[in-house]
Order: sequence, then C-alpha cells, then structure tokens
Amino acid sequence: MKHTLAQLLEKMSAGDEVALARLITLVEREGAEVAPILAAIGPRLGHAFTIGITGPPGAGKSSIVDCLAALMRKAGKTVGIVAIDPSSPFSGGALLGDRIRMTQHYLDRGVFIRSMATRGSHGGLARATTDVMKLLDAFGRDYILVETVGVGQTELDVMGATDTVVVILVPEAGDGVQVMKAGLMEIADIFVVNKADRDGAQRMLTELTLMLELKYSNHPPREPAQPQWRIPVLATQAVNSIGLKELFDAIESHHRFLLASGELDRRRKARRREELLSRVEHEVRRRLTARVQTNVTLARLFAEVSEGKLDPHTASDVILNSEFLKNGTKEEQV
Amino acid sequence: MKHTLAQLLEKMSAGDEVALARLITLVEREGAEVAPILAAIGPRLGHAFTIGITGPPGAGKSSIVDCLAALMRKAGKTVGIVAIDPSSPFSGGALLGDRIRMTQHYLDRGVFIRSMATRGSHGGLARATTDVMKLLDAFGRDYILVETVGVGQTELDVMGATDTVVVILVPEAGDGVQVMKAGLMEIADIFVVNKADRDGAQRMLTELTLMLELKYSNHPPREPAQPQWRIPVLATQAVNSIGLKELFDAIESHHRFLLASGELDRRRKARRREELLSRVEHEVRRRLTARVQTNVTLARLFAEVSEGKLDPHTASDVILNSEFLKNGTKEEQV
Repeated sequence: MKHTLAQLLEKMSAGDEVALARLITLVEREGAEVAPILAAIGPRLGHAFTIGITGPPGAGKSSIVDCLAALMRKAGKTVGIVAIDPSSPFSGGALLGDRIRMTQHYLDRGVFIRSMATRGSHGGLARATTDVMKLLDAFGRDYILVETVGVGQTELDVMGATDTVVVILVPEAGDGVQVMKAGLMEIADIFVVNKADRDGAQRMLTELTLMLELKYSNHPPREPAQPQWRIPVLATQAVNSIGLKELFDAIESHHRFLLASGELDRRRKARRREELLSRVEHEVRRRLTARVQTNVTLARLFAEVSEGKLDPHTASDVILNSEFLKNGTKEEQV
Repeated sequence: MKHTLAQLLEKMSAGDEVALARLITLVEREGAEVAPILAAIGPRLGHAFTIGITGPPGAGKSSIVDCLAALMRKAGKTVGIVAIDPSSPFSGGALLGDRIRMTQHYLDRGVFIRSMATRGSHGGLARATTDVMKLLDAFGRDYILVETVGVGQTELDVMGATDTVVVILVPEAGDGVQVMKAGLMEIADIFVVNKADRDGAQRMLTELTLMLELKYSNHPPREPAQPQWRIPVLATQAVNSIGLKELFDAIESHHRFLLASGELDRRRKARRREELLSRVEHEVRRRLTARVQTNVTLARLFAEVSEGKLDPHTASDVILNSEFLKNGTKEEQV
C-alpha cells in the first residue's frame, strides 16, 4: 500500500473515492486494520440514513434500488449502494441489459456502488457489510441503500443494521403464510408488491394489508399517546418506473416518523449495543482460534474437548476464568 | 421439581422417559442446569448415530422420518426423533391425518419423539437442539432422527451437528440452481426426490445426478487411495412406502463409510471443537448481558458505545482485557 492508513482516511474524508474503495477492501478482508479504521471514523458516524431493500430472488430489487438512487440524486442527495445479492447487477450477477442500465450511475460521482463478495461465513459477511455502511456514512453519503436477498440470517442481520427496511415481493412469491414464515413480516417498515401488473398482484396487496390489520389488532399500542407507524403496502412496476416516487415518499415519511418519535435514536442505540456484543463474541473466537495454535495449555484443552473427554461447558468456564483472551497472550498472525 | 438433578440423571440412565423429558425441558430453557447436565452425560456420549432430515416445507420430511423410524424399529433398534420443523406433525403443526398416523409411534416405547419450540433467537434453538440430541444419545438411543426445514442458519447449524444429512426435495422444488443457492448441495450426504410419481421428478433426479457429477469432476479426490462417498440420489414415495427401504440402506451404507474411512471420528472431533468455540461465544454474551445490569464500569462502557461516543472495537478490547468475563464478577440471576 502506498498510503498509510491515516492518509487513506484523510483522503477519504476529503471525498476521494479511490481511498474509500481501498478502505472498504481493508474492512472486507477483516484484517488488523479494521479496528483502527472504525475507531477513526467513529466520531463522524450517524449522518447517513440507511435503507435496506430485501425480498426473494427475481423480485426486482435492483431495479428498485436503481430508480430510488435516481430519485435521490434528483432531490440533490448523495447515495451509496451496497449489494450483497449474488443475483444483483450491482454484484455483477445479472443480465447484460441490467448492467448497461446501471452504468448511468457509474458515471455519476454522487452514487458510489459497492458489491460484497458472498464468500465466507455468515457472521463475517454481515459484519463486513455493516462496516462498509459505516465507511459510506463517514464518506458523507446522505442515503445508503443496501440490497440483499431476504432469506438467511446474514440478510436478516444486515436488514437489522438499517434504519428503514423495504420488503419487495412479487405476485408469484406465494401466499401470506410464506411471507410470515420467512420472517419478513417482522422486519418490514414498508411493503412493496413489484411487477404489480402481473396476475395475483391485487390478491397479494389485499392479503398483505389484511395481515397487517390483523397484526395491529392483535398488538394494540401499549401507550396510545405514542405515535405509531402504519406499515404501507405499495404497488410498483420498477421497469416502467411506476410507483417509485410513492416509495421514495414512504421512505422519507418513515424517516420523519423515526426522527419525531425518537425511534431512530432508540434503534441506533440498540444496534450499537448489539454490535458491541457480537464484536466481543467474534473477537473471542478469533483469538482462541489463533492462540490454540501456539499456546500449549489451550491446545490441550481443545484436544480434550474434541476427543470427548471434557465437555464444552466445563472447558468454556476454564477459558473464561483464564487469561487466554487477554491481549498479552501469544497468538499467531491471522 | 421433586427430584434433584442427580436423581433425574440416574432415572434417565435407567431408561425413565419422564426423567428424560424433564431433562430435555431443562436444557431447552437454557438455565443454569444445562452445564451440570451436559457435564454429567459427557462421558456416555457417542453411541447414537444421528441423521438429519431437511428440505423445503411440504417435501414430506415427516412421512419419511415416520417410515424410517418404523424400519429402524423392525431392525431391532431404538429411535429418538427431534423435530424443529414448525409444519411437522411431530411438532403438532400438520394435518389431522398425519397426526393420527404418528400415534403408532407414540405407543412404542422404542421411539421417543420431541418437538422443539421454534421460539427465541437463532443461536439458541440450534444449541438447544444439539443438547437434546445429546440427551437422547445418553438415553441410549441407537438412531436419532432430526427433522428441520432447510432454509435458515439454525437449520444448517443443526444439520452440521448430525452424522448423516438427508436432503429431501420434491419435483416442485424448482431447478438445480435453487438447490445450490439454498446451500443444500454442500451439506447433503444423500439426496431424496420424494413424491417421485409427480411431474418433473425424472427431470429433477437427472439434474441432481448431473450436478453431482459436475461437482466430482471439478473436485477430484486429492488422495485417490482415500475412500470416497458418492452421494446417492434416490426416488421415494413416502405416502406409498416406496423407496424407503433403499433410503435406510443408503443411510446404513453411509454410516459404514464414515466408520471405515475414519470420517465419523474426524467429523465428531471438528464438531466438538466448534461447539466449544460457540459455547464460549454464547457464554460471553450471556455474562456481559447480565453483568451490565449490576457492574457500574461495564454499564458506563456500554452506554458510551450505544451513544456512539466509543466504537465497539475499542470497547471490545477493553472488555477482553478486563476481568468482566470471569466467574467472580457479580451478575444478576438470569
């Protein structure tokens, strides 16, 4: 690397996209630079409003992200896009037509696009994605759009790290029961039925609306005075640019709700707390995995467990009462 | 509770099903009893051969589990069934007909059935399920069948804790690409296309076989002398009891392969090691969550992070270099 970390951070803060891209790569690699990078940008975080876009494969998420980015630019705002959907054109996995369409943004310095490699463990990808969102925030983006395929734990974790979650469905996505099963019901702030010109769209819109009504009637607000967010169900046809303005309005409206109700602050606090817990968990695993290679006592403990001679509970207790997790303990470079 | 933990464990070892059920409930609650229970049964584990049955909803997993249990009983073996599929009749979520059919096993003391509540966090359910499998192992079951819906991380984690993984698909499940996407390709030891009398069954059988051929040709065995497992693709019609004998044979054959190749030992060792790591992670989270309530210094640290004044990386380092994780630190009862 030609530049020091401090230089990269300075350049990034000054709006240098190449420096930003390099920092993102460092964060993606999950190496030793992650901690100093995040410590350095920490004080500058919180400006960006983050929007998660999720749904089944083929729901048209990328087209919607594309249209939203265009609308945000028109409103004079800067945009960052993070795609962890392997079928997304942003990640290079889609049809040529989609990719060509996206190049309009590649020429616009107000839109920074980054796709995340879907390699590696589930925990790692979600962590790296939230770290990349932070870099985009520190870079000064007004909006950050994160696109995922809403199926696994990684995707749910990533959605949990955004301020507003938009769930995109298509008429073919099946009945309401499956939506609930997929856990999408719990995370949606806004529902969109895309490809709304297709058969079954009206049925799906009605079904979603009814399910939400049911949810509200089963869980009435505890404090009636408190403002409530009514999850809207919108119809769009992204390829024909229909309904996108309304979606952007709904996102803005949710943003205003989050600010006015104090919910944005509550969500972000809870998120940072959760991030601390999962960071400690991750670091514990990383240190143990490295140190078991060099520390004889630890290696013996692991061997006893893997041979079934010692149960993991007892061994876990031994580890937590030891000094194995502290900084001073010898570890191999990872 | 009328009995002490030691009494319950003794009764369970003597074949008392009520004691077993109570111990399972204790393990499911994830309370303070889990550690002593697992420490006590630790030396007796390893007898049971565990089989994971997974696939999309409606693939007929429960019918297959049902038939396999009957075949195992006919072979003079005892069976434990753990269902974490919310649509499974074992979990009480299916059609009346299914439930009536299952009652044959309820009358057979050689089959112990337990369904897991799908409440709570993803990590918790997978952990509790593997602990319940251990109890069934200590109870002396020859076979343990675990049924999950193969979609999320929990299910993949549970499958990773079994000796043999059977992936059940149905012709309607879609093309091969989706199978790969779902990550099922990586975990299957045996593929089954159930409802093989339906349209598209032959196409799916051919497609799976071709995909496996492709996998083998892309990844030839590194040491040709080493025995290799060729993943079989079987056709079944569970409701007509067709193909089940062949499935049981394939499971037995995989069992023999695992034993002969030393792979069973390797898998179980790797699994215990992973269990230790995830147990430490879990315990770290549990202790921090409890102690932040009572420890002023820890509470201040968490507050600084949640307010965005301190980044989680730095805070994580502080925690790991402190004594917060040790047994002596005051914590609230959880």
